[in-house]
Amino acid sequence: MEKNVGFVETKYLAFAQPPEGLLLESGQRFGPITLAYETYGQLNKNRSNAILILHALSGDSHVSGYQKEESKPGWWEPMVGPGKPFDTNLYFVICSNILGGCRGSTGPSSINPVTGKPYGLDFPIITIADMVNCQKVLVEHLGIKKIYAVAGGSMGGMQVLQWVAAYPEMVQSAIPVATTLRHSAQQIAFDEVGRQAIMSDPDWSRGDYYGKSMPAKGLALARMIGHITYMSDASMEEKFGRRLKGKEKYSFDFTADFEVEGYLRYKGDSFVQRFDANSYLYITKAMDFFDLIADYGRDLFRGIKTKFLVLSFSSDWLYPPSDSEQIVRTLKRHGAGVTYCAIPSDYGHDAFLVEIEEQGRLVKNFLDAQYRA
Amino acid sequence: MEKNVGFVETKYLAFAQPPEGLLLESGQRFGPITLAYETYGQLNKNRSNAILILHALSGDSHVSGYQKEESKPGWWEPMVGPGKPFDTNLYFVICSNILGGCRGSTGPSSINPVTGKPYGLDFPIITIADMVNCQKVLVEHLGIKKIYAVAGGSMGGMQVLQWVAAYPEMVQSAIPVATTLRHSAQQIAFDEVGRQAIMSDPDWSRGDYYGKSMPAKGLALARMIGHITYMSDASMEEKFGRRLKGKEKYSFDFTADFEVEGYLRYKGDSFVQRFDANSYLYITKAMDFFDLIADYGRDLFRGIKTKFLVLSFSSDWLYPPSDSEQIVRTLKRHGAGVTYCAIPSDYGHDAFLVEIEEQGRLVKNFLDAQYRA
Repeated sequence: MEKNVGFVETKYLAFAQPPEGLLLESGQRFGPITLAYETYGQLNKNRSNAILILHALSGDSHVSGYQKEESKPGWWEPMVGPGKPFDTNLYFVICSNILGGCRGSTGPSSINPVTGKPYGLDFPIITIADMVNCQKVLVEHLGIKKIYAVAGGSMGGMQVLQWVAAYPEMVQSAIPVATTLRHSAQQIAFDEVGRQAIMSDPDWSRGDYYGKSMPAKGLALARMIGHITYMSDASMEEKFGRRLKGKEKYSFDFTADFEVEGYLRYKGDSFVQRFDANSYLYITKAMDFFDLIADYGRDLFRGIKTKFLVLSFSSDWLYPPSDSEQIVRTLKRHGAGVTYCAIPSDYGHDAFLVEIEEQGRLVKNFLDAQYRA
Repeated sequence: MEKNVGFVETKYLAFAQPPEGLLLESGQRFGPITLAYETYGQLNKNRSNAILILHALSGDSHVSGYQKEESKPGWWEPMVGPGKPFDTNLYFVICSNILGGCRGSTGPSSINPVTGKPYGLDFPIITIADMVNCQKVLVEHLGIKKIYAVAGGSMGGMQVLQWVAAYPEMVQSAIPVATTLRHSAQQIAFDEVGRQAIMSDPDWSRGDYYGKSMPAKGLALARMIGHITYMSDASMEEKFGRRLKGKEKYSFDFTADFEVEGYLRYKGDSFVQRFDANSYLYITKAMDFFDLIADYGRDLFRGIKTKFLVLSFSSDWLYPPSDSEQIVRTLKRHGAGVTYCAIPSDYGHDAFLVEIEEQGRLVKNFLDAQYRA
């Protein structure tokens, strides 16, 4: 496969210096903040072709291409690049690691300049709105007054919705994928079990584990739970069924008998290599606090001119089509321009990362039609 | 509420003395075994009115009534008693704690007579068939050659199906509720995360924690995960929504902000008071090994005369109606007599414990019609 976008460089923007810092939704002022970000394509002369892509819980700024030889491509590689749905021959694509993350942006594992040590639990509680407000600083730093499109799946979709709710005049079009206006009780419940898994790990040490032993088992458990919710019953059956893992008969012990057990253990263990346990706590809490209906009430999306493409996947039971339909109803109540597609897929919530063909065609047509308009 | 069945006494049957013991499905011989059981109603003269009720993962032999003043009633109280669906004026109801359990029957927390210490991981791996083979000893001990009905939900339903598959001539009618012929990849996945939660708890100590510190956090986590799967998205929304727990605003810390978080923590913590972590490991593994299709192939249920009432609940996503429909198809392939009802309910998998009215009427009509026939 051609490495369409060549090697990608991560850039950094520092802002919100103390004492002012950035005013967080909690009321606290926080700074300094660094955002790690990547860009693809060229910003045109009138700065009207910028697309902001927003990542999900475990994502980062590396949305496409390769950072160096033999590294893995970005997390939405088939969607972003020259000639791809987010066509970098046409558009200037920006993707930043979220505030609270652990992939270059300021988060609980960052050094607190006051103490010279990682923040740990001294990091402030953040919200989806706080993430978006940091992205706004980045966008304005790049000289962009109006974003052509904001797009993202899962928690990325929450940021899309937050962008339009808070700064409708800055967003020309929006693509929230497999997401929701508010976290439901079941979504909160899964997050809470993941958090409890981390906080129950003695190595968590109330968040003060840096330079010591990571709460690896707790974080791996949280990720295992997550992975079950990202797949559908059908995709698990298709991928694993009841196949045994490297054996012909049941072991009659507590080793991994089934492939699905081995897969979950592997996914849990490998996640620990690349993710910070405290970031997992802060980010899931931000998702759980997310509730645009409570924040804006009946005024949510009132009078917006932003055009929407809302996408869901039929077998996604974590952010099911009914959540997307609520987004559509809320937009339509105010007469907003919205196209909604429920894409048939067996891949569950993961579909937004892997169902490229139909999703890609819908995104491309939507973006290009708006762009020509 | 009238305590219809008065105080119930738990009885015990000891059998499978070494060296013969009981031949387990793994090939190992194991004993001695004690089963704790309760009975309700009277066995008639020709011993033809016995109903065996089989409990789910966290159940026990105490299916109905009260063991003493102010104790909690049994786990299927509204279903079992005089004039109730399993009418103890007509039927002789038996319920025993499963092999591997921790509520009176022999399990990993029982004393190994060879060492004088609890078995822990020296307890053998068991299967649903092993549980049923123990129940068969109990039934025969009670002088019953043919059981009028076997009934149970969830893992209790697996035992129902195992009973008919293994001993069709002994079972006149069968009521498997909210269950499956084989554990799916997703069902295995949830169990595996629960087991990993327990085994990751340092207090687990490879199962050798008796008299020391229990792996309370791990077991509580496993139970929290379980509870999410027992409820539906809709019932969680109905019961908790996004209501905050004893506060007006977000705490902006990692305490339980939402009622659903508090509920899960409470359910997890209270489970630890009444359940053994090793039993949780052994029982979930038995469920994961359960696969009647692999065990019997095309001969499953061939030639049986047992009459079936198969029940599922519309919002049960752990053992969804499609699993029950597979049971029905398999029975119908051999021309078996089967009535199937998918009961509309928002309660998810928990519905088999709480949707009493419609389930009760269906059970009563089925039992009484067969009994008169």
